[in-house]
Amino acid sequence: MGFTFFTPGPAALYPTFEQHLKTFVENQLGSISHRSQQYRDLHKFTVDQLRTLLNVPDTHAILFLGSASEAWERILFSTVELESFHLINGSFSKKFYDYSNALNKYAHKFEKPMGEGFLAVDVEVPEYAELIATTHNETSSGVQMPVAEIHKLKQKNPSKFIAVDMVSSAPYPELDYSIIDTAFFSVQKAFGLPAGLGVWIVSERCLEKAKSIRNTYSIGAHNDLLTLWKNAQNNETPATPNVMGIYLLGKIAEDFNRIGVQNIRKETEHKANLLYKFIEKTPGFSPFVKEKAFRSQTVIVVDSEIPSADIIKTIKEKGMAIGSGYGAGKATQLRIANFPATSVEETEKLIHELGKL
Amino acid sequence: MGFTFFTPGPAALYPTFEQHLKTFVENQLGSISHRSQQYRDLHKFTVDQLRTLLNVPDTHAILFLGSASEAWERILFSTVELESFHLINGSFSKKFYDYSNALNKYAHKFEKPMGEGFLAVDVEVPEYAELIATTHNETSSGVQMPVAEIHKLKQKNPSKFIAVDMVSSAPYPELDYSIIDTAFFSVQKAFGLPAGLGVWIVSERCLEKAKSIRNTYSIGAHNDLLTLWKNAQNNETPATPNVMGIYLLGKIAEDFNRIGVQNIRKETEHKANLLYKFIEKTPGFSPFVKEKAFRSQTVIVVDSEIPSADIIKTIKEKGMAIGSGYGAGKATQLRIANFPATSVEETEKLIHELGKL
Repeated sequence: MGFTFFTPGPAALYPTFEQHLKTFVENQLGSISHRSQQYRDLHKFTVDQLRTLLNVPDTHAILFLGSASEAWERILFSTVELESFHLINGSFSKKFYDYSNALNKYAHKFEKPMGEGFLAVDVEVPEYAELIATTHNETSSGVQMPVAEIHKLKQKNPSKFIAVDMVSSAPYPELDYSIIDTAFFSVQKAFGLPAGLGVWIVSERCLEKAKSIRNTYSIGAHNDLLTLWKNAQNNETPATPNVMGIYLLGKIAEDFNRIGVQNIRKETEHKANLLYKFIEKTPGFSPFVKEKAFRSQTVIVVDSEIPSADIIKTIKEKGMAIGSGYGAGKATQLRIANFPATSVEETEKLIHELGKL
Repeated sequence: MGFTFFTPGPAALYPTFEQHLKTFVENQLGSISHRSQQYRDLHKFTVDQLRTLLNVPDTHAILFLGSASEAWERILFSTVELESFHLINGSFSKKFYDYSNALNKYAHKFEKPMGEGFLAVDVEVPEYAELIATTHNETSSGVQMPVAEIHKLKQKNPSKFIAVDMVSSAPYPELDYSIIDTAFFSVQKAFGLPAGLGVWIVSERCLEKAKSIRNTYSIGAHNDLLTLWKNAQNNETPATPNVMGIYLLGKIAEDFNRIGVQNIRKETEHKANLLYKFIEKTPGFSPFVKEKAFRSQTVIVVDSEIPSADIIKTIKEKGMAIGSGYGAGKATQLRIANFPATSVEETEKLIHELGKL
């Protein structure tokens, strides 16, 4: 087939994926015990590579979950006794809020329409909210919250916990973990791996909160923070982990580190720039996100006069896949993923074909 | 390497695993959208194959989780308002009990020492317990609860829910789902796949209970039964699933169906018989589980006079891996997995080498 996927996740697999998978299979790593030194070394390798890539200090653990959605639940269980607060401007930030209600917490929200973004100065955090839930990159609408605004929001509210959903942007956002309490992402987006693994970065301060509330409120049973943290000290997980996913993630993170995360970020911005410029100048296309500062660098959402299904079909014939809009935008929007797995050349090819429509 | 793994999980990969993985990669299935018809067909294929293999009626959904441990939590959330009851005779049945406490339920237990098993006639279920948690195969001790006893226990207590942990035995136990409310397993045991996926079989009756309690008690947020069930009706999952794991599981289940589940069960019993006979007649070895009816067919635990570490080392030099005992049994016991991935010939080779010690 040799299709190029510009879909926002599951997305294109990173070019080195197949080689790493081959090594995994040849070394029979799918059969090793998750309580062996061989596993602990593999686990530590991945954590170390991610720590370097994302500049995560030792105050924060890097933990593995079944998916990033699971992180929503675990963060709420660990840091919220009673009240959380959510910035909502799309389907995924809304789900974080829904999770809080489903756990019988009181969830406050500050909601904006799809396509709009948040500045720290506009946000009033309710007095008793224990957690501020932010979304760096809203995969449904292509809105990003600038990292500087996330940092400012925490600085304005130093006693609250702040969580950053970077599911579809990590390793692009350069978060300062001396400020950020917890963040999480999936591997099937910008890391170019098959789905089935979530990564949760979480501070000692969150751990202390979880310890302090557990006698009054349940902090969950499966992958509860205390047990995850304790196992992580020994480079293990409480349950049998997705060893294949953890291995592959470590190898991709190593590849990213070889290239240098700043180079990856620069190339991401370069390709995003090519796409936005093309969309702005091409009749029939316009960026869904009007405010430039809020435009995602990793998921570009395009308003299209031609029905999106027709464009997707035409582009498919050229050997490329792009996503439709999310929810209400399904028929009239395109979502184009801009992850490290797709090269400048492939991006230029996509632009070339879109230009011929 | 070409090592044969007789370890109880992660275990030997099924011989067809590599071919299925190759097909998955070649068809770029790691990049397909989990909201596409292509994914829904893949999902349905796996569910249909499992339904045939395990004889699961349409009254029960077959759902996918990040691991089997997650099923413990989801079953407790869905079926227990206040009180659960647990048959404990090893580390994994104990963990199911611990999960109930961690969710602030009142967990009753009937505990027996490691190596002993349960008969329905001995079990008195507390009056207000809503769920009876049983373990078909206690991976830590090599004790099985005969399927007939599990069925009897439910028949004695028809108003209670009964859950069956078959993590390290499915597809061996022939459960009757007109009686059993819910059961679950992992793919890294008898299905011979890499870890990272749990399978949860659950009845409409559990769904109704979850619906009835959700206004008073949280039934969880991530992978809660109502949302999982609703998505499953459409052959989807709430969050991005482990598409690779689900695909591979479907193909292995299809392979098992081609062989016939009764043939797989017969071969399992044949190989278990070879192992137990050898252990019983060989000086220095004895089965840890004294009562024959309670001896696991899939995880054989052996008391050894020679330190287990020495035996594991010698066997490793012969190209085979066997497990040590669990917890307190680590130094003096061996655990030998007997899953479909290891052939009669490989089992005979292991017995031959153990006989030379």
